[in-house]
Parts: sequence; C-alpha cells; structure tokens
Amino acid sequence: MKVDNKHYHSIWREASGDVSFIDQAQLPHSFEIKTLSTLAQAATAIEQMNVRGAPCIGATAAFGVAFAMQEDPSDPNLGAAIDRLKQTRPTAVNLFWALEQMRTALESIAPAARAEAAFKQAEVICMDDIKTCKRIGEHGLSLIREVAEKKGRVNVLTHCNAGALACVDWGTALAPLYLAHEAGIDIHVWVDETRPRNQGAFLTAWELGAAGIPHTVITDNAGGHLMQQGLVDLCIVGADRTTRGGDVANKIGTYLKALAAMDNHVPFYVAFPFSTIDWDIRDSTQIIIEEREASEVTHVRGLTARGQLETVCITAPGSPAANYGFDITPARLITGLITERGITHASETGLLKLYPERAHAN
Amino acid sequence: MKVDNKHYHSIWREASGDVSFIDQAQLPHSFEIKTLSTLAQAATAIEQMNVRGAPCIGATAAFGVAFAMQEDPSDPNLGAAIDRLKQTRPTAVNLFWALEQMRTALESIAPAARAEAAFKQAEVICMDDIKTCKRIGEHGLSLIREVAEKKGRVNVLTHCNAGALACVDWGTALAPLYLAHEAGIDIHVWVDETRPRNQGAFLTAWELGAAGIPHTVITDNAGGHLMQQGLVDLCIVGADRTTRGGDVANKIGTYLKALAAMDNHVPFYVAFPFSTIDWDIRDSTQIIIEEREASEVTHVRGLTARGQLETVCITAPGSPAANYGFDITPARLITGLITERGITHASETGLLKLYPERAHAN
Repeated sequence: MKVDNKHYHSIWREASGDVSFIDQAQLPHSFEIKTLSTLAQAATAIEQMNVRGAPCIGATAAFGVAFAMQEDPSDPNLGAAIDRLKQTRPTAVNLFWALEQMRTALESIAPAARAEAAFKQAEVICMDDIKTCKRIGEHGLSLIREVAEKKGRVNVLTHCNAGALACVDWGTALAPLYLAHEAGIDIHVWVDETRPRNQGAFLTAWELGAAGIPHTVITDNAGGHLMQQGLVDLCIVGADRTTRGGDVANKIGTYLKALAAMDNHVPFYVAFPFSTIDWDIRDSTQIIIEEREASEVTHVRGLTARGQLETVCITAPGSPAANYGFDITPARLITGLITERGITHASETGLLKLYPERAHAN
Repeated sequence: MKVDNKHYHSIWREASGDVSFIDQAQLPHSFEIKTLSTLAQAATAIEQMNVRGAPCIGATAAFGVAFAMQEDPSDPNLGAAIDRLKQTRPTAVNLFWALEQMRTALESIAPAARAEAAFKQAEVICMDDIKTCKRIGEHGLSLIREVAEKKGRVNVLTHCNAGALACVDWGTALAPLYLAHEAGIDIHVWVDETRPRNQGAFLTAWELGAAGIPHTVITDNAGGHLMQQGLVDLCIVGADRTTRGGDVANKIGTYLKALAAMDNHVPFYVAFPFSTIDWDIRDSTQIIIEEREASEVTHVRGLTARGQLETVCITAPGSPAANYGFDITPARLITGLITERGITHASETGLLKLYPERAHAN
C-alpha cells in the first residue's frame, strides 16, 4: 500500500534483522511504524491488536517463532513458542496455519540453523501472501467489471478491514477494489464502521482514502437500508476462518449483512486465501468465537477538536457490556467465495473444485 | 419513570405554566431538566433531539402549538405553528398525528380561548400516552410470561430506545419489561447500542439501570450472533411509523435484527400506540427516511477518565460519512404488533382487527 507516496507492507523484515510493522492500533490518528525483536513482543502485538487481520496475524506469528529461535532454537523452545502464539487469538485460522508451517519447516532442521531458516520461512509466508492477495484481487475484479459494464458506477459494501493492513499487502476483500480503481472503473465503497473497534472507519476508510478510492463511512446499522434502496451492487468481505463446508467466521456483524444481501438479491462474496480454510471443521459451531474485553464496547478512542487523542466512555455508567468478536455466516447466504485460485460456490464441493488435493482429507 | 426515587415523566407542564422536559441529549452523562416556553424552543428541542422518541416528539410538538397560541392565537399563526413543527423531523408519524389533534381541537374555538385549550389538549395527549403505554406493557407482558413459564430467565433484545424517555412514561417496547420486572419475572435485556446516536447505550441502558433491570450493552453487530447462539428469546422494538399493511419504520438497524430473528426463529415484536399507525400509507417506500448530519457518525460524545464530557472524531480524517436515521422492517419479518388494544398480526387484516373503525378509510 502507498502512504505518502511510499510503498509499505503491513509487516516486513528490516536489513538490521528487526521486524517492523504498521501499528494498526494507532490508525487513523497517527501512522506509526513499530519494531518487534522478541517472541513476547510479537505475541503482545497480536493480542493487543497492534497487528490484526487474519493473514497479518499469521505473518506476525511466524516472525514471533523466528525471534524465539534466535534466542533458543531447541525443540522444547520451538514447541513453547508455537504454544504461546497459539494462545494469542482463537478465531482466525491463518494463525494456526502459519505456526504449523513454521513447525514443519523447522523441526527437521538442526537447531543451529533454525533461526536463519525461520526468518526465511516467515518472509516466504509474507511474500506468498502478497501474491495470493493479488490473485484474489484479479479474480474479484472480474465481478466488479461485470457490474461496471452493466451500469457504470459500482457500489460495493464491505465490513471491517480486509485490506492491505489485514494482510501483508493488497488485502483480500479490498484487493479487487484496488485493481478496479487502477483499471479506471468508477467504484464507490460503503464502509461499515465495524464496532466495537471501528476497523472500518479507522482502517478501511484510511486505506481507501490513501488510495484515492471514493468511499463513505456508514454505521453498522445502515447497510440493510442501503440494500433495500438499491444502493449496493455487491458486498465483499474477508474471513477469519472458512469451514470445509463454506461457512465463514468473520468480524461480528458480517452475518447481518449477508442476511440483508440475501433478502435484497445483492451478491455477497467472501474473499480469503487458502490459509483461511479450516479443512478439519465441517460444523461451524465448533469455531471458537473470541470474546474480548467489555471496555472495547464501553469506550472509544478518537481525536478531540484540539487534535488530542482521548478515550471516552459511551455507555451509561454502571451498565455492563459484552464483546463478541466474530460471527458465523452460513454458506447458504454466500453467493461465492473468492480465493487465489478463483471464484467458487460456498460449499465443500465448491471448495474442492479449487483445491482437489484436499478431497482425501477429513 | 423513577430517577433517584422521584417519579418523572419525559415532559410535563409545571404549575408556573412552563413546560419541563428531561434533556435526553445530556443522558446518560448528566440528568438535566430543561424548560420550554416558546414554539421556537419546542421546535429546536425536537430537531436537536433534546427530546426524541415518536410519542415524546408528538407531546413536545403539542406544547409547541400551545406556546404559539399563547403568543398569537390567530388562525394564520395556528397554521404557521403547525407548519413549523411539521418541519422538525420527517419520519415519526406521531408528530403529525399530535399536530392534527391540536388543529382539530383548536380551529373551531375562538382565538381568545385557544391558549388555554391548547395546553389542556397537550396535557390530554400526554396523559393518554401514559395510559396507552401502560396497556401496551400489559399486552406485551403476556408474551414474556409465556417464555418465563417455559424456561425461567427471559432474554429480550431491544434496539434504540422505546422506553419511558421516548414516550411520556413507561415506553412502548420497554413497557412490558418494566411490568415483567415488577411482576418478579427474571428478565435480562440485550441492549443494542444503536449507532450513531447510541440511544441504546445512552438511554435504554440508563433507564433499565435506574429501574434495576439486568441488562447488557452490545454493539449493533452482535445481535445476530446472540440469536444464532440461542441467547435471545424475544425481540421487542418500538416504531416511528407503521403502515396500514404492518410495515414498520424504526431506528436504522431494526431491519437487520428482524432478518436475524426470522433466520433463527426468534419471535420479533413491534410495540407502538395507535398514533404511530399511518393509515394513509400502504407502500412503505413512501415513508421519508430522515438523513441527518454526517457528524453524528464521525463524532461521538462521551466521558473522559477525568469525568469531562468530550466529543471525539472516530473516523479516518477526510472520509465522508452518511447518516440514515431509520429503515423499514417489512411486515413479513414481524411476528406480531403490540398496541394498546392487544397483540395482532403484522398486516392490514391484523391491524383492522384491533382498529375496525379504520376499515372504511383509504
């Protein structure tokens, strides 16, 4: 992604060996690059959502393992590092996928060679993610082009942030939009603010603004009305975990938009890389839905008129709050899944058409 | 409603002749009683949402007409006052209903007697609303009692604020909850925060807290997940306008909850008084959906850790926002309508069963 005419990834290794990342918890109010140099820092960055987005979490965890190997490349420490990182967040499966990639790459290597191999593997994960996201974008672009040919301006609704920040670059749900904009297609994006953490209003709006893509921030309540009014041509969202049957765990509220899309005959697509697919899960009720601190609901951080960052309480004093991070959108509500291998039906059959090598499993 | 052991209405006439109201724009951060003594003040209080909620808007508008009659009870001024108040907010039909009540009550009276008659009529509107809401509560209570008998604790989800503040007392959607609590039924309320103005987190949570009713504030995104998890027994919301066919205009986001309720077989009820029914509208697309200032989406007011009220910007700088106030929930998604006359099917036939006197009209 371009920020002030400089190209950035969400996370990358510096020549010095440190790992830098865009601190997403500070956006959109300030653009800050932070540095990781230990496993503990990587784990905390994931837990506190300085990095977030399923593929970006996976990449960060991979670097976390590499730092652990730098410190102590023994078998027990490899296992302990992976275990520690697995505890950080429960829902996105890319985290577990990336950690298993690291385990596979490292466990057969002599400890002395592990640190170097781990950083290399983490960088491979990052580079592969970029290519994967670009391909997702190309497949998704065909859908946008179809609408554009029929009616000119294309109105896309998205939820949360499945953009370059959520991955290493390009994004999943936003990749088709970046390519459409580059191709000169007239697009406009309805950006769900995505309470409680406002990743839409904070991150998606910031990304789209930086790329010069026309967009409008709306409350999470508004999408149904917009669809009823014919103001949405296409919904595209990301995913934190996709089951073998095509059900999708994504940011809380996604399910409500999918219901509205179905009710108004608006196509609803979910974009994600292969690493988001949990081939072991058929029943989406098995997915653990993260519950986070109530303070994310009761308090919000923003900029005062004096330009200062301030956290304010936005609920009645003494009222408890609950904070569920994700919900499940059943496959029956999804028009299609967009992955790096193409667009397919949200079903086991559909997924196996793109990934025939997984037909034997489970 | 009780606040610090004192009984309040949302709006009332003082012995002095002034009209007092609870300034809802200050809640939950501070409980302030403000005074109205002119038409202009009444109109501004409605526009700026110091008073809000369909029945409460109607009552305030009635007092606005009375102040105008105090100043100049001529026919032209009666018409001008009503016209001015009609401009304040476009969606809630109780406003227009109350203004027509005032016109009917006053136009046949000699100007000299109009001011006194107008205040009396406005007070009749208030007193009738209280009785009406209490009856809505009694009818709704039967639904809650049924669930309680089957399973003990009753989990109700509500959207926005259709409580005592939104009316003169009791509320519409919340009236059954107040009565259930008084009857010793174990209820718990999921309170949608209701962005952008947070009437749920600000007003409903405050009302329920003051009444000692267990409740939990959730983001507007969470209700679908809760229903999927079986954590909601019943949805009850209010209405700003109900068409002859049983479609309901209510706070933006209501439609999304109704979709989720239908998808999860959760009963979805809408509670409102007769004055919310627009017998002249069959086609709900004719209802004007209010669009308000983008700043209500981009900015939020809350309490800092130092206990100061502060408004902060919560969107990416430079990103535009759109602010739709209401959406339409089609009758097909509604389990039943609760009015002061009983519970009925959301359809013209259903409404006419309760209001047979309207069969001839339209």
